[in-house]
Amino acid sequence: MHWDLNCDLGELSGEANQDAALMPFISSANIACGLHAGGPELMARTVALALAHGVAIGAHPGYDDRAHFGRRPQTLSAAQVRELILYQLGALEAIVRVQGGRLHHVKPHGALYNQAADDAELALAIATAVRDFDPSLVLVGLSGSALPQAGHDLGLAVAHEVFADRRYLANGRLVPRTESDALIETDDEALAQIQALAQEGRVTAREGHRVLLRADTLCLHGDGPHALAFAQKAHQFLTEQGIPLTPPNTDKDPHE
Amino acid sequence: MHWDLNCDLGELSGEANQDAALMPFISSANIACGLHAGGPELMARTVALALAHGVAIGAHPGYDDRAHFGRRPQTLSAAQVRELILYQLGALEAIVRVQGGRLHHVKPHGALYNQAADDAELALAIATAVRDFDPSLVLVGLSGSALPQAGHDLGLAVAHEVFADRRYLANGRLVPRTESDALIETDDEALAQIQALAQEGRVTAREGHRVLLRADTLCLHGDGPHALAFAQKAHQFLTEQGIPLTPPNTDKDPHE
Amino acid sequence: MHWDLNCDLGELSGEANQDAALMPFISSANIACGLHAGGPELMARTVALALAHGVAIGAHPGYDDRAHFGRRPQTLSAAQVRELILYQLGALEAIVRVQGGRLHHVKPHGALYNQAADDAELALAIATAVRDFDPSLVLVGLSGSALPQAGHDLGLAVAHEVFADRRYLANGRLVPRTESDALIETDDEALAQIQALAQEGRVTAREGHRVLLRADTLCLHGDGPHALAFAQKAHQFLTEQGIPLTPPNTDKDPHE
Amino acid sequence: MHWDLNCDLGELSGEANQDAALMPFISSANIACGLHAGGPELMARTVALALAHGVAIGAHPGYDDRAHFGRRPQTLSAAQVRELILYQLGALEAIVRVQGGRLHHVKPHGALYNQAADDAELALAIATAVRDFDPSLVLVGLSGSALPQAGHDLGLAVAHEVFADRRYLANGRLVPRTESDALIETDDEALAQIQALAQEGRVTAREGHRVLLRADTLCLHGDGPHALAFAQKAHQFLTEQGIPLTPPNTDKDPHE
Repeated sequence: MHWDLNCDLGELSGEANQDAALMPFISSANIACGLHAGGPELMARTVALALAHGVAIGAHPGYDDRAHFGRRPQTLSAAQVRELILYQLGALEAIVRVQGGRLHHVKPHGALYNQAADDAELALAIATAVRDFDPSLVLVGLSGSALPQAGHDLGLAVAHEVFADRRYLANGRLVPRTESDALIETDDEALAQIQALAQEGRVTAREGHRVLLRADTLCLHGDGPHALAFAQKAHQFLTEQGIPLTPPNTDKDPHE
Repeated sequence: MHWDLNCDLGELSGEANQDAALMPFISSANIACGLHAGGPELMARTVALALAHGVAIGAHPGYDDRAHFGRRPQTLSAAQVRELILYQLGALEAIVRVQGGRLHHVKPHGALYNQAADDAELALAIATAVRDFDPSLVLVGLSGSALPQAGHDLGLAVAHEVFADRRYLANGRLVPRTESDALIETDDEALAQIQALAQEGRVTAREGHRVLLRADTLCLHGDGPHALAFAQKAHQFLTEQGIPLTPPNTDKDPHE
Repeated sequence: MHWDLNCDLGELSGEANQDAALMPFISSANIACGLHAGGPELMARTVALALAHGVAIGAHPGYDDRAHFGRRPQTLSAAQVRELILYQLGALEAIVRVQGGRLHHVKPHGALYNQAADDAELALAIATAVRDFDPSLVLVGLSGSALPQAGHDLGLAVAHEVFADRRYLANGRLVPRTESDALIETDDEALAQIQALAQEGRVTAREGHRVLLRADTLCLHGDGPHALAFAQKAHQFLTEQGIPLTPPNTDKDPHE
Repeated sequence: MHWDLNCDLGELSGEANQDAALMPFISSANIACGLHAGGPELMARTVALALAHGVAIGAHPGYDDRAHFGRRPQTLSAAQVRELILYQLGALEAIVRVQGGRLHHVKPHGALYNQAADDAELALAIATAVRDFDPSLVLVGLSGSALPQAGHDLGLAVAHEVFADRRYLANGRLVPRTESDALIETDDEALAQIQALAQEGRVTAREGHRVLLRADTLCLHGDGPHALAFAQKAHQFLTEQGIPLTPPNTDKDPHE
């Protein structure tokens, strides 16, 4: 029994960047690759931090849209998606390798992540690019969505991602952000959701019944004034429960 | 007797952006203009917030270097500086004007601000562009530095900026960040510095003696986990001292 | 009887930039505003060239997508379009005004231009932003399309744009680029089309019959190895025909 | 006896991009890597063209400064240079590898190329990054300058680059562009310089005496209205002289 806490890093400048402080509390880092945020220098610094803390290094590729932080949906051809992903994986891998590290996983960012949860064609284009780049990489996507499915279909190791501060529907998908109860507001409720997810792979859906969910890795936010405090809490909670943290699929068989 | 709390806004994406929460505690906002950070949409949203809160709107132009958040020094010709500033003032002014607002001041960002504190030629190029764009704008720069001097020389209203969390030298300049005691770490010491600056225009320098300082406006940080809490404290402190907040130079004579 | 030759300028770097050489042959310049191409410095240089040659200065705003030269379609809200346009008009206007010039017209770029030809809502958002910025600006769009219609509806002066090297359909719209006969390949045929457009506002459609067309301004390409030579030919041809060049709508009534 | 014609490609949008037309006349392509120009999609398209024409593929990394096309000098630390180069090599290599190709060489772009010709520390930082990424890559730099020297010192294969349209000084360096006779204006003189360089590794300096020069590869311009015509001429000229084109250092010993 083990679990993974992941965090999107290398995305913010100046004081807003709390990456160094977050490192002790996570087991895998998704590092922005310079198109929606970050850049060579910040990538190298974040990679060095991850290596120093023994945190698994993942690519966090997004749309080439720094002005909107990769949050605006785009409509790209499969070929365009492929080049977009390859570019970012290659760029980060070069920086990781020269520091003596190894790329471990890939988790798309923002609108690319969200669209790939529902759009099987987009999911396949992403998974194909990841496989063509390096078939040993773990593909991380929204739990139960098209992205881990596409990775699985292509023979990639995949990790299904869940959230502590988002409420779930009975079908195992997230309550849309447009609805008033999309967010879990209190730390206690969020920790309870972590416990249910980590120990039983279950979540209490909005409607009240418990739902089975693939839950290989939990996303901790790396920004905002409360991010660091909650990361500490989540880490301490798992430690107290006797659940060690390891990156997903390090042994290619994380859940058995 | 009145004072100004300013904050750099419109610079961050997602949860890291606390602009809406900060607005009640400041009197002037410096809004990023899309070259070092921000963009049309975030600018418009920040302008709307400022108008709703009666906060004075300033331009926060920086180097055209989003990848490094405008923090890398550059060496530009006077003509290049001029176009850089005009571009950003014009872009923001259009967005402000259509919302029924008015641009009030200009405070350069990052490396442009720092270099303009010591480089009289650069300071003059910035001040000239501001004057040519709109001679009624207030130019904000590091207290006692080349930038407000250049603005003054060209007949602009200027505001000398001071900091609550930076220690000062006996000559009224900041202790360089490279030195171990550059930062004031406790809120109490920072509030004491605010009090001395707001009420007496004085600061206790590192060496212990009190130094006179032009202090028209205080910079509050808008990023980082502690930013919002300190803005609240600073605002409450000034309120308790009976010092009302107004943007600098609204009457062209803020200190008498 | 007069006509307008316009060209998209301020878009290219280095040797590929032939703007200075093109200036003598055109009457209006559409200058890129730093989001799909160009930037403060190139804008200022192009404005100076236009002023020196008495060429009317227009804004050429595009999507914020330098990586794809503003050629990828986007789906923005009306508010996003508004801020996008305002930002670019304001930025260019500041640079023009300080050089003693005046902004004369606005012609959207690339995917924004193409989508606004068919999408009445997008066209209205663009036209509204232009009117709110400065109602004396001329709005340039594809002849007979939704964009000049939207400008007209809002009371703006508009200019209907035509092309020398594109073949037309019987309904007055362009043969899509995906069809094999979309382009007119020889200079002679292109000049014949210019003559018919300039003198009679007519074009011979692909199907052979002559079609009436609003033709206020002709777009000359500013890039590619043949651009300069053809601009010279077109200019000389109109001169020989005794048709003087003037920017569209300088007198608000260009065609009567 | 063989020689190399290289060209900087993947840098331009739309009609200005003549890469496909240039391919038949060159033996090696330097492909922009998305920071000063280009991007994933254009890189992939240019790589496909190069593979189809049997043209050697090189990386053309530049400063992260799309707004100025990588032409403004910067002052970076050795570590910053290293990450800048690694990022771009990795990004291009991923795209090349998935298409079944191999990266062959690296030629820095613009201000990075020019500064590395004179700045031994910068040259060493570039060469170190190239070696750490892949020690089999050929490093291309200005003939006789610090960059190929640094590559040589680190054990890399290097190629000394010369120009057909630039005049040389008696010391083997280029006449600065600020001087009136920096450029060779006629095709005939440029072809004569090509002949002298390719066959004898000599050039007639401005002062009239002939100068020995390392000349492993000649840079053809890929932009501007005359670029394609001159590339054809240069290619035909070398063919007529019986000098076959091959990328430099394919055998690690190109000149003996």
